Amino acid sequence: MHINGQPWRTIWFEEADQRVGIIDQTRLPHHFETRYLSNLDEACTAISAMQVRGAPLIGVTAAYGVYLALREGHADLAAVCSRLLATRPTAVNLRWALERMFQSLQPIAESERPQHALALAGHLADEDAEACSAIGEHGLGLIRRAWEAKRALKPQAECLNILTHCNAGWLATVDWGTALAPIYKAHRAGIPVHVWVDETRPRNQGAFLTAWELQQEGIEHTIIVDNAGGHLMQHGHVDLCLVGSDRTTITGDVCNKIGTYLKALAAQDNGVPFYVALPVSTIDFTLEDGIREIPIEQRHPHEVSHMQGLNEHGQLTRIQVMAHHSAVNNYGFDVTPARLVTALITERGVFAARRDSLAALADFSN
Amino acid sequence: MHINGQPWRTIWFEEADQRVGIIDQTRLPHHFETRYLSNLDEACTAISAMQVRGAPLIGVTAAYGVYLALREGHADLAAVCSRLLATRPTAVNLRWALERMFQSLQPIAESERPQHALALAGHLADEDAEACSAIGEHGLGLIRRAWEAKRALKPQAECLNILTHCNAGWLATVDWGTALAPIYKAHRAGIPVHVWVDETRPRNQGAFLTAWELQQEGIEHTIIVDNAGGHLMQHGHVDLCLVGSDRTTITGDVCNKIGTYLKALAAQDNGVPFYVALPVSTIDFTLEDGIREIPIEQRHPHEVSHMQGLNEHGQLTRIQVMAHHSAVNNYGFDVTPARLVTALITERGVFAARRDSLAALADFSN
Repeated sequence: MHINGQPWRTIWFEEADQRVGIIDQTRLPHHFETRYLSNLDEACTAISAMQVRGAPLIGVTAAYGVYLALREGHADLAAVCSRLLATRPTAVNLRWALERMFQSLQPIAESERPQHALALAGHLADEDAEACSAIGEHGLGLIRRAWEAKRALKPQAECLNILTHCNAGWLATVDWGTALAPIYKAHRAGIPVHVWVDETRPRNQGAFLTAWELQQEGIEHTIIVDNAGGHLMQHGHVDLCLVGSDRTTITGDVCNKIGTYLKALAAQDNGVPFYVALPVSTIDFTLEDGIREIPIEQRHPHEVSHMQGLNEHGQLTRIQVMAHHSAVNNYGFDVTPARLVTALITERGVFAARRDSLAALADFSN
Repeated sequence: MHINGQPWRTIWFEEADQRVGIIDQTRLPHHFETRYLSNLDEACTAISAMQVRGAPLIGVTAAYGVYLALREGHADLAAVCSRLLATRPTAVNLRWALERMFQSLQPIAESERPQHALALAGHLADEDAEACSAIGEHGLGLIRRAWEAKRALKPQAECLNILTHCNAGWLATVDWGTALAPIYKAHRAGIPVHVWVDETRPRNQGAFLTAWELQQEGIEHTIIVDNAGGHLMQHGHVDLCLVGSDRTTITGDVCNKIGTYLKALAAQDNGVPFYVALPVSTIDFTLEDGIREIPIEQRHPHEVSHMQGLNEHGQLTRIQVMAHHSAVNNYGFDVTPARLVTALITERGVFAARRDSLAALADFSN
């Protein structure tokens, strides 16, 4: 997608300098800065310091990390993969990408592994971009129909209003994104869209990343606090909701950023369609009941109690927002039951959030 | 209530210095500082700069402002009231308190007005504290029954978990608060309560004020982001919700801080009782449909895009959290339909959120 009018991906290999380029996402939206990874240490830091984040992008970064490690002479492939896996232990895609690298490289002679690793990492990156583009195409169909239906009812309607939570945009993937991919496709197809961007406390990925992505693509958007979506839906200001998923059960329950469930409740209460966009790889075909079976990570209280922004001198700084004396609890995700999900948008098409519908995808999951 | 173990109110008159004392709420929770009001200008600034906030406290501050104005020789009572009214034009209680002052003082000889104004302002303050205490007593009954029911089901239960949104505590009133009054009474009655404190973006009144109040009273509490309540309710970590109301319809719809509606939806979806505590004066007996009839104030985008806290030197500072290029929308309140409200707790008792139940209160509303 675009930054300052130029096409970018979130990760790329520079032939000339033989290094891996990334966008430092910890500096956005205030500063757009790139970083370069030349060895295993730098790849691990990029993931653990969250310079790259988003399940698909973490996986691809780890794949490049394997290449960088082999190139600098790390002989123990299993140890390299273990070290990369430990950077973000709960990320499902990280494990998946590293297992794929390990299984492909392990049978190959050591001397040939680096070049194979580089090719495979590039392949994983392309594969992710293609899957996201396909999610975008399938979601575009839903957006187009929603816009046509709205215009039929209200010929004077100026745009289709879409609410999203967190960042399931191209910054979380290699390109296109998941929940934002259909929005980018709709915009390019000439459908007038306006996006309500949930701030997404505590890490503010909506306000920091989603808003920045949309601005760079020239898409109309408005940042709102996470508290506001229900009011907007009550007053007809939201035509559909579109979010991502970190993990999805065979029954269609969706585990996504904390607060997604509240928006799904408001959507149901106001007759607003609630769509979830995801690659098939996030579906866990062994899970039946998302609320009971998916463990929810508790993250550091400082994510809630501290905040980053620009001080009066325009310098990026971090302040302590809350007082020390109070306990803080910081669950990272919640589960939206399938009954609240209108449909799942995948790279294979649009599916009902039901076992009979999703079971057909099991063949594509590996 | 208590600050550092000493009893305080949010506003008081100091006989010795003939001035009105307030707590500067813009500095909490990091700094506890008092301010003194000696003339009309200072009273107006205290309200407009939100050193005092919360509908009941604003009303009482304005009443003292009338006294200070008359004492310094402002002869035009109507002009004084107009000027105070303009400090926060949408505050219902401000108008109510000023009308009461005007109607009581207008028939009195000018020379006697100051002493009457001072007495009346003190009376309004006492009246508010008594109403809040009565709300606390009525709510205590509900909390006691909830605790007894929980312990009957789970004899090993350690506490009753109550979720609240925003600050409807004693800082918003003269003493006791509305939603927090029953919690203070329960704590003093020996019922073990733990409070989930919604951060309450964008102004963070939960994290800044409610958490500070509870800490000063020694009540167990945990700050959470506004996104978290649904997840906590899904997992049985919330026994009841208890919030305030800025305006209530005769049919029981509740207009309160933005995001209240989302918590009410989650409560209903998980069978958690949702109580609203309010003085009868917030019931507008002319309103039938809260969603259609109550205009929702849009506040300054800087409340969303900027944040106050301590910098690395421990100084209170303000940073710009979001980038300039994105639009920001900032609705201050939302409406929770009566169907989601378990009961209304008032100083006159506990009432169903229905017209037939609330109509009986109309006689007490003036």
